[in-house]
Amino acid sequence: MPKVYVAIIGAGGVGKSFISQLNSYALRSKKHTISTILISRSSKAILSRDYSGLNLATWESDIASSSVSVKPPSFPDETLKFLTSAPGPVILVDNTSSEAIAAEYPRFLSSGVHLVTPNKKGFSSSLDLFKAIYAASGAQNGGYVFHEATVGAGLPVLSTLKDLIDTGDEIVKIEGVFSGTMSYLFNSFAPLSPSGSEKPFSACVAEARELGYTEPDPRDDLNGLDVARKLTILARLSGLQVSEPTSFPIQSLIPKPLESATSAEEFLVGLAGFDGEIDKVKTAAESEGAVVRYVGSLDVGKGEVSVGLRNFDRGSAIAGLKGSDNIISFYTRRYGERAMIVQGAGAGAEVTAMGVLGDLIKVLERLK
Amino acid sequence: MPKVYVAIIGAGGVGKSFISQLNSYALRSKKHTISTILISRSSKAILSRDYSGLNLATWESDIASSSVSVKPPSFPDETLKFLTSAPGPVILVDNTSSEAIAAEYPRFLSSGVHLVTPNKKGFSSSLDLFKAIYAASGAQNGGYVFHEATVGAGLPVLSTLKDLIDTGDEIVKIEGVFSGTMSYLFNSFAPLSPSGSEKPFSACVAEARELGYTEPDPRDDLNGLDVARKLTILARLSGLQVSEPTSFPIQSLIPKPLESATSAEEFLVGLAGFDGEIDKVKTAAESEGAVVRYVGSLDVGKGEVSVGLRNFDRGSAIAGLKGSDNIISFYTRRYGERAMIVQGAGAGAEVTAMGVLGDLIKVLERLK
Repeated sequence: MPKVYVAIIGAGGVGKSFISQLNSYALRSKKHTISTILISRSSKAILSRDYSGLNLATWESDIASSSVSVKPPSFPDETLKFLTSAPGPVILVDNTSSEAIAAEYPRFLSSGVHLVTPNKKGFSSSLDLFKAIYAASGAQNGGYVFHEATVGAGLPVLSTLKDLIDTGDEIVKIEGVFSGTMSYLFNSFAPLSPSGSEKPFSACVAEARELGYTEPDPRDDLNGLDVARKLTILARLSGLQVSEPTSFPIQSLIPKPLESATSAEEFLVGLAGFDGEIDKVKTAAESEGAVVRYVGSLDVGKGEVSVGLRNFDRGSAIAGLKGSDNIISFYTRRYGERAMIVQGAGAGAEVTAMGVLGDLIKVLERLK
Repeated sequence: MPKVYVAIIGAGGVGKSFISQLNSYALRSKKHTISTILISRSSKAILSRDYSGLNLATWESDIASSSVSVKPPSFPDETLKFLTSAPGPVILVDNTSSEAIAAEYPRFLSSGVHLVTPNKKGFSSSLDLFKAIYAASGAQNGGYVFHEATVGAGLPVLSTLKDLIDTGDEIVKIEGVFSGTMSYLFNSFAPLSPSGSEKPFSACVAEARELGYTEPDPRDDLNGLDVARKLTILARLSGLQVSEPTSFPIQSLIPKPLESATSAEEFLVGLAGFDGEIDKVKTAAESEGAVVRYVGSLDVGKGEVSVGLRNFDRGSAIAGLKGSDNIISFYTRRYGERAMIVQGAGAGAEVTAMGVLGDLIKVLERLK
């Protein structure tokens, strides 16, 4: 069986799930032998210098006792040299959310290293980096790049968009709930079937944070930037030249005076003082038979991208969403008036890792 | 650019759309030169005997004046010889619904010819044929086989199922509305928001037929076999050994006495006499706050497949379906309680052809 070499940077929540899934996959694969030659986690790393492969069953204890690192200055030069010296194709898996690592993607791809990643930074920061990544991948002997898990985790969002475009359909509009956190927040704050015991918005945020549905500081969700990054990726893949993830309207749910709160706790206390404002938005939606949701939308014809609150008819698919599910509606020329819809959990280590492993398998299938 | 040869059998509704989409794709492809070497339509065919390629802009008039055929006895032997003599990789596109052509898939695949098709017959008839197709494809130098459009037309159903399984998720249950015809019929007969002016079931069937939403004889939809074939494909890909598409319970909506009606018209007249029966089913569903829908479901753990009428809560995604849309819910270990859902138009020449072209592109991406 042909041997393929895998290097994994980042072994936090998603990374750990990924390694576990990769281990099972490698054991049952009948088409490729998979040799993991690098695992890096914060300041420590383990390398298989003879390319025979690390033990994926003992990597956690092995890395704990390691004294090696692939941080700068050894990254990227030494790492790149190590990968390109492997005696076969190499797939780099970036499970971090690092902007610095993303900045090096073009170099790795130009050197023929394939890349799969859930890291949004490379595709949603400057347009120059996005273009450099795809140019490097598209050049002769460039590596493949797949990043399905940057939008909707394991949901088939980018692959569906690619199929639509590749086969000559025209994307008219993409719209949806792209954040598990925002989905959970609004499904509890403004449910489709109110029980009358709904909590004020600040209490919903506090509860979501306790359940682990938000970032440690919920402002990192409420500022809308995560959703904006996903829309930037979809917009660029649809052909729009979005220069930065902040170059279109993003409605932040952080009240101005609380932007400078010095802790998440201080922010949450302060947020209660603004419950009246967002309650008005909720009531206004209800009065027209609708519910308010935090959505991203992309109008390809008009070249418009926007992220923020909007009202949706109670009968719409977006209004009917549950839990922390995502929903992505593709309106295209061929599908006409009604959207093609993909819906389901769009966050979580297991389903995100699955999206990354699915991409890795797509690379394997394209190798000979 | 590497040259790839395409042979197209069947040029009816889907086939015509496919050829038009392929023509556009070939013109814009920067990675492969596509040479169409065969188009066959009912009793006539055109071949590019020197493999230089047919003119996809004039194929309809060219085929009309052709005196060649690829029917038996020239099919399959001569056809296979013609394809395998091409000076590069060959992709066979079967846009028919022929059982006889499907029976030859293993031979073509064994000979290294790749296959893409919306024809359900090869994958949903005898289990032996299904296994022979995948064995031929999986053997050394076997051709690739893709058949996304056999379930849900252009919707990403089989690719999603493949990703879930390949990455090690476990399919618990698949459930949904798999027929555009059945979707349209029940969305008009038993809508989520009744207007009070709903027509009896037989009138809904007659109307759907006039609008072209049913087969010429609506019994070919109402017998449930089309849905049963799709469930057979999903079940087999999920690992269940379903021996025939009729080896599990299929609820036919054709009243027994009308099975022998000699024409579609006679059937429709007779169907009105049974409107009371199906009205009772509709009213019973309404009395428990539900709507009745014609669905297929697959329980992998129990090894059970079934096709027929079932009641769904008014708040469920299946109840909320509109028009002739399909909806497919995947319940898996990783996605847990709430399904991953794919929804949208699941029939129509353009979106079906798109599913076929998407598969053809997947083959191209796997060629070097």
